[in-house]
Parts: sequence; C-alpha cells; structure tokens
Amino acid sequence: MEIRIMKNILDRNQNRADMVRSLMYLKKVLMVNIISSPGAGKTTLLERTCEKLCPKFSIGVIEGDITTDRDARRLERYNIPIVVINTEGGCHLDSHSISKVLDSFDLDSLDLLFIENVGNLICPSQFDLGETFKLAVVSTTEGDDKPAKYPMLFREAKAVLLNKVDLMPYTNFNLESFRSDLKRLNPNIPVFETSFTRGDGLEEWYNWLSDQVVSSVNSKASRGV
Amino acid sequence: MEIRIMKNILDRNQNRADMVRSLMYLKKVLMVNIISSPGAGKTTLLERTCEKLCPKFSIGVIEGDITTDRDARRLERYNIPIVVINTEGGCHLDSHSISKVLDSFDLDSLDLLFIENVGNLICPSQFDLGETFKLAVVSTTEGDDKPAKYPMLFREAKAVLLNKVDLMPYTNFNLESFRSDLKRLNPNIPVFETSFTRGDGLEEWYNWLSDQVVSSVNSKASRGV
Repeated sequence: MEIRIMKNILDRNQNRADMVRSLMYLKKVLMVNIISSPGAGKTTLLERTCEKLCPKFSIGVIEGDITTDRDARRLERYNIPIVVINTEGGCHLDSHSISKVLDSFDLDSLDLLFIENVGNLICPSQFDLGETFKLAVVSTTEGDDKPAKYPMLFREAKAVLLNKVDLMPYTNFNLESFRSDLKRLNPNIPVFETSFTRGDGLEEWYNWLSDQVVSSVNSKASRGV
Repeated sequence: MEIRIMKNILDRNQNRADMVRSLMYLKKVLMVNIISSPGAGKTTLLERTCEKLCPKFSIGVIEGDITTDRDARRLERYNIPIVVINTEGGCHLDSHSISKVLDSFDLDSLDLLFIENVGNLICPSQFDLGETFKLAVVSTTEGDDKPAKYPMLFREAKAVLLNKVDLMPYTNFNLESFRSDLKRLNPNIPVFETSFTRGDGLEEWYNWLSDQVVSSVNSKASRGV
C-alpha cells in the first residue's frame, strides 16, 4: 500500500522532471542539481563560482531552503536571477516546484542554472528534478565513510567535490579509503579536492564546469535556439 | 490528497510511538534518540559514552543505517546489545521498526537505550520513535546557521552537543550567532561544547546524562519494576 503511494509520487515527479529536462535541452541550459549534507559548502561553492564565471556565462540560481532565505541573500551581490523555494519543512525539492519557478528565468539567454538543493544527503538524491546532472559535495570533516554509507547520491552524481581539504590534517579522514569506496560505486567519476575558502582545486573545477557549459552552449548555437 | 496520506502515516507512527514510550516508562529505560547531519559525530559520541558509562549503567544501542553495519561494528568491542536497522535507502527510522526490535533487549535490566538515527538533520526530527528525548548533535564545521536553517530538530531536542570545537579556530563559525539563533527556538536548552576526539566538554555531558539515567533508575526502583 505504502509502496504503491510512493510509486505514484515518484511517477508524477518523473513525468514533470522529463518535461523540465526537455525544456532545458531545447533551451540548452546546463542545469546542475547540487546535493550535500548541511554545511558542506554548497552556498560558498556558488559564491566562488559566480565570482569566477559570471563574467563569462549567464548564470541563474534556484535556492532550496527549508525555512529561510539566508543562502539567497549571500548570493544577491552577484546580480543574478535567484529564486528561493521554501519547502516549509520538506526534506528535498521536487520537479513540480522546479517547473513552477522556471518562468522567472530568461531561459533563452541563460547558460547555467544551479539548483542548491536542501541540505540532505539522502532524500534529494531520490528525486529527479530534470537536471542535466547531479553534483555531490561532501566535506572531509564529515568523515571518509560517506560514499559507503550514503551510496545513492554517489552512484548518481556526475562529479564529486571533496571540500574542506584544508581541514583534513586536523581530522582522521582517510583519502584512500574514501576514493576506493567511491570507485566501487562510480568507477570513472571525477573528484575535485577543494577548499572553497582557501581556493584549493577551484581552477580545476572552473575548467571542468566551463567545458560542460561550452559544449551545451555550442550545441545551442548550432541548433539556432 | 498527499497531505491526507502523510497524516495517516504520521498518525500510525504516533500510535506506535506512544506504545513504545509507555513500555519504556514501565521498564524505566531512558531512550535517547540521537539526530544529526551525516558525520557530525554520533557514533564517536556513543564510543566515548560507552567507554565512560558502561561500567556504571546497562546500555543498549539501536543503530539506524541506510545500508551498512559500519557504525555497529565500531561499537562491538563494548560488549553491549546492539541491533542494526537498515532502512534500505529510507531517510529516517520510524516507531514501527523500533517496536519490532525491542524484543532483542532485556528491558528489565536495561538503564539506557540509545538510538543512533540515520544521518539527516530533517526527516528524523519529524518522526516520534517513543524516545524519552531527542538529542541534537551538530558540529562547528557545518556552520553556525544550522539552528536557523533546520529549526525543527533544535525546537524539539532536550539538549544540544556542539561538537568539533577543536576545529572551530579553522572555521568562520560564530558561536554567539549560533547560541542566539538557538535561544530564539529553545530558550533553556543546555548546550555542551564538545570535542569527542580531544575530550572537551565530555565530563559535563557524562554528568548531565548520568543525572537523567539516575532519576529514571531511581524511579524504577521505587516502582518495583
């Protein structure tokens, strides 16, 4: 009984996600669904990425938050379109809420649309939002066992940012164990070892992300949309 | 429609939670439901607490994990009864799963039963397990904005362990802002500033927890159960 209900919810979510994905494909917007535990650094990643890439690409952000607009306020100074979705206690975003707010963006001019999901390593990985890909952010201070203990996200993600490497020396984080657990789940996934505050690994991240955007934008030019 | 379904699930959960709570009251077992983000230190807290309090009290543990038994294995050396509940992807424990595993414990001799919930700051705080109280664990590396952004848990918890204070100097964590947000949600909640690895604050925690157990055990003696 409960399984049936859950399946209906997921079916409805999948239909709407497919619609969103079709629209993003038509408009050639790269949509990145960022997922992490609370406090792993999603908003700081967006700050750093906007600083670097706003001069180069047209960027928008959908901010998923349970109750506040604190994260959105931190991004206001970049002068980009931002929409906040407050889930009112809900533990993840769904494709319906995403499809409802897409009208707030000029999709024809947009290159890159970030979704900062609710801080939660579990539920957001189970709901397709129609994104181009999921991005996993995990920090060294959470421990090296996160891929093994929360495999869904790490199986699905297209890249992993291992953040707070500046704090690694003060923890018992075992990089080898982290990487080998991850490899078992997702053998070819790129891992960027970063410190969003100190700057480690960010050039590699900007380059990789830019490549993703450029191939999407080139494809937009060639399709004349 | 979805609200109705959710309400039924929560109603059924509440009924079973009330049953569990009645049983714990009768057996005078202090049941502590530990909730935190992934990697905040729940299992290390249990290690430290078992080392210190196992000689004094009869302790059991219910380990909630999505897929592995890694946390339970870390506790094996304390020679205490441990039951693992794998949620198979589920984002929280519910009162049905708790009630099913209670038979595995000798409740008449047990003083203290820990539940290590799934690592998730959101969903577990919405499901009553029949616990005596919820305990919130949050680490400085997650940022000082967690009470404001994830208020449900901090409103409900009976105490907060602010862990990883040894890493605070390397972060931008603002203790004053953390405490004032928390005070707005839960004015009289005790906050223990701890480092489970370095030992800060643990004596205060042991003393506070022991007081909770002793008053429950005394009550057991006086009730002759």
